[in-house]
Amino acid sequence: MSGPERGEPLLDLNSDLGEGFGVWRLGDDEALLAVVTSANVACGFHAGDPTTMRRVCEAAARRGVAVGAQVSYRDLAGFGRRFVDVDPGELADEVLYQIGALEACARAAGVTVSYVKPHGALYNAAVWHEGQASAVVAGVRAFGDLPVLGLPGSRLLAAAEDAGLLAVPEAFADRGYTPEGTLVPRGAPGALLTETAPIVERALRLAERGEIVAVDGTVLTTPARSLCVHGDTPGAVAHAEAVREALISAGVLLRPFAAA
Amino acid sequence: MSGPERGEPLLDLNSDLGEGFGVWRLGDDEALLAVVTSANVACGFHAGDPTTMRRVCEAAARRGVAVGAQVSYRDLAGFGRRFVDVDPGELADEVLYQIGALEACARAAGVTVSYVKPHGALYNAAVWHEGQASAVVAGVRAFGDLPVLGLPGSRLLAAAEDAGLLAVPEAFADRGYTPEGTLVPRGAPGALLTETAPIVERALRLAERGEIVAVDGTVLTTPARSLCVHGDTPGAVAHAEAVREALISAGVLLRPFAAA
Amino acid sequence: MSGPERGEPLLDLNSDLGEGFGVWRLGDDEALLAVVTSANVACGFHAGDPTTMRRVCEAAARRGVAVGAQVSYRDLAGFGRRFVDVDPGELADEVLYQIGALEACARAAGVTVSYVKPHGALYNAAVWHEGQASAVVAGVRAFGDLPVLGLPGSRLLAAAEDAGLLAVPEAFADRGYTPEGTLVPRGAPGALLTETAPIVERALRLAERGEIVAVDGTVLTTPARSLCVHGDTPGAVAHAEAVREALISAGVLLRPFAAA
Amino acid sequence: MSGPERGEPLLDLNSDLGEGFGVWRLGDDEALLAVVTSANVACGFHAGDPTTMRRVCEAAARRGVAVGAQVSYRDLAGFGRRFVDVDPGELADEVLYQIGALEACARAAGVTVSYVKPHGALYNAAVWHEGQASAVVAGVRAFGDLPVLGLPGSRLLAAAEDAGLLAVPEAFADRGYTPEGTLVPRGAPGALLTETAPIVERALRLAERGEIVAVDGTVLTTPARSLCVHGDTPGAVAHAEAVREALISAGVLLRPFAAA
Repeated sequence: MSGPERGEPLLDLNSDLGEGFGVWRLGDDEALLAVVTSANVACGFHAGDPTTMRRVCEAAARRGVAVGAQVSYRDLAGFGRRFVDVDPGELADEVLYQIGALEACARAAGVTVSYVKPHGALYNAAVWHEGQASAVVAGVRAFGDLPVLGLPGSRLLAAAEDAGLLAVPEAFADRGYTPEGTLVPRGAPGALLTETAPIVERALRLAERGEIVAVDGTVLTTPARSLCVHGDTPGAVAHAEAVREALISAGVLLRPFAAA
Repeated sequence: MSGPERGEPLLDLNSDLGEGFGVWRLGDDEALLAVVTSANVACGFHAGDPTTMRRVCEAAARRGVAVGAQVSYRDLAGFGRRFVDVDPGELADEVLYQIGALEACARAAGVTVSYVKPHGALYNAAVWHEGQASAVVAGVRAFGDLPVLGLPGSRLLAAAEDAGLLAVPEAFADRGYTPEGTLVPRGAPGALLTETAPIVERALRLAERGEIVAVDGTVLTTPARSLCVHGDTPGAVAHAEAVREALISAGVLLRPFAAA
Repeated sequence: MSGPERGEPLLDLNSDLGEGFGVWRLGDDEALLAVVTSANVACGFHAGDPTTMRRVCEAAARRGVAVGAQVSYRDLAGFGRRFVDVDPGELADEVLYQIGALEACARAAGVTVSYVKPHGALYNAAVWHEGQASAVVAGVRAFGDLPVLGLPGSRLLAAAEDAGLLAVPEAFADRGYTPEGTLVPRGAPGALLTETAPIVERALRLAERGEIVAVDGTVLTTPARSLCVHGDTPGAVAHAEAVREALISAGVLLRPFAAA
Repeated sequence: MSGPERGEPLLDLNSDLGEGFGVWRLGDDEALLAVVTSANVACGFHAGDPTTMRRVCEAAARRGVAVGAQVSYRDLAGFGRRFVDVDPGELADEVLYQIGALEACARAAGVTVSYVKPHGALYNAAVWHEGQASAVVAGVRAFGDLPVLGLPGSRLLAAAEDAGLLAVPEAFADRGYTPEGTLVPRGAPGALLTETAPIVERALRLAERGEIVAVDGTVLTTPARSLCVHGDTPGAVAHAEAVREALISAGVLLRPFAAA
């Protein structure tokens, strides 16, 4: 986690952006773009119309934020949060399609898509579903050799590595971890960090020592190179801003894991 | 219309392909790919799922057929055949999105998108609608400097030329022309050529002399460099095959106007 | 505009509701349901997922607010705000489909759809487009003899009357009127009333005298029996609430024009 | 299975209809309507635009064929053949929405929706998925007390019975059965009956004795009151026609299980 040359700790902050559709908005893209180093941009399948995609790419380009393709099941009505048992061959092509569409928007903004992160139910499925994890990787490879961002230990990152892609593990700023290193299920006690202090502490400890403290106090070592922050509530944006400030104050270099 | 080096007449044959969606099919893609030199591939907005797009690109690549982006209004229910009063800024972004999605499929097949042709109601609107014609061109330019295929005398081709793009006029194999050079409206007498002989004659005269004979016998000079053939009925495919054979027998070189 | 039996003035207040889709929300449905007497509920074509539709119907039923079908072009990406040149026959069937879908939700909530109001670009097209105005009416009649809410003088209301339907003209609480009785075009001076006082005055004068004061002071007589209020901004909701309070204080009976 | 009054055996024949969308067609609706007594009409979520729905209802009404709602996941791209992990509450509302939309089309044709049958992956999920089976039933009950058509032994039919609905089990004309009474999985030997003779025999034995012969010759007693025939290939239509003729020749009364 340390920068090899000058010794400063490094961290990437990523967040989901461009998740409106047409007249509908979600989250505060402008505020988040001032916080993160990597923007997971929705590609039209769970959210993200072409104009929103292009504007987010332009704003990211202005700020030097890396653009990633947040690929999803084709599910606007469910915001990509429902598992869909898509045939892997078709899923690979849908991933390819989405990356390509975003790449055009990125290039129009003078940048390129520099990584891929699955969204919602596809992210979760790619943790354990061999066929869909491989399909996401096949779609990425059909496009080009982009890094894949995902959960440490997931089938997705294993498949990405097997395929010779850069597999980038991430941690979550506001989710509780079990002593085994998995996320505390939503609804269970400790699933969410809701106060600023522990969220900031999580970020600092991750950046400085590569560690995460579980709900029971166990100290976990994590390979995570990116920290996922959220922006879908005003509180979440404030947390993300606090995380950024604290990291910078502590001398952590905030940099995209992939070239912006 | 003649090949400058060796003197043979040249012609491009284009047709719409990949116009199924999911379980639904339309037209005989395989048969048409054996006929045409340029494939206008649907990009998902009026037809064309990602798997179909990729397969058509692969089949086109195997045959040396050029891949073009057949961009459309977002209108699966209407197959892109209904005018939609889209804001030009949004339309440009939708065009950009569609070209990018197809480009990813094309690259996965080892080729690239080499031109753009609007589909259906967008094609018709781009003949006279300044804002939408310019929007299509803006979308193309945001992607890259691709040739644009369209109706001679259309606002679309004028806007493409103004923007420094290659503007490629086309003629129709099976549509009647007025003495003024416009298409006989559907429903009016002579709107459609339904017999093989006049369709083949149309193609030969266009290739060899750059001429089209109107419904009243008037001989028109046309700048058309590509001939559009259809494949949505068994009869249409047979006509297209006859056109190809006749052109080859007459020594016409069939070549994409854009690099395949 | 006066209640014939007891002499009190009567007015209906209508507003657009249920215009979210999936995870996306728009407007403050709860606040508006406390204000209006008629709810124009989105039916899934420009907004409105089934769960939202059912919930709005249930909330409307609890409050005695009449449920109307806010039918639209099939255009989620454009929120139904773009003219689509749909074939009238198909449009009639789309209207029928939408009313039926909402009727099922309404019945599940113990009420029924009691009127129809076109949304956005379809509302505007139905002012002048004979074919589409008739198509909306044909769709309504195919469902049943429901009242149609629309712009005074529109083709829509004329077609509804010709078909024997109740044609209900409406006025707008926050739009400027020309001396000729048409709306001041958006963007032109006086197009929008943005202060509370003139909006409340508009409502009172409409309820008490059946009059609207145009931008130049001309007093217009209007047949409007319903007043459209908006709720897509916090300010709009506050205006709507002020209108309701003022009307009640002035002794105006707020009642749906159609049975709730 | 016998008609109590006059002793003739009774059978219902059902098939999927109206499964095109916009310009795309699937199957031969006209031919099937001459064969079946119950039409499972697609409602717009996996197939079925409003105009197709209305026309199929009109054609069914002319022939006295019962109209059923073939409800599905919202999945045009996958034709409803992919499991979607929809929240049961939302699924119930989607079922309600679809039945209501079809009911409007049916009423415009002078008939009503007389039963509900889930389509594709939802049909399969409702065999074992308690939550989704109950959701389908909840959606049906929210609409009204319609019969539900499904697989014998499925959670769907159990939930329908528990809710007081008529639960109608069906058999398949062209699928192989295991000795345990389940369908031979697609791809395994004997999964499909492809010859006319055994398909006709299946239908006759079911109608006359309430029996199905499994792949190994075991004779199974079945509660099935409806036989599902297919029409998505020319061969399937021919089989369905042969089944109808054979049943009529044998004196079997072909009647909808629900009122047409």
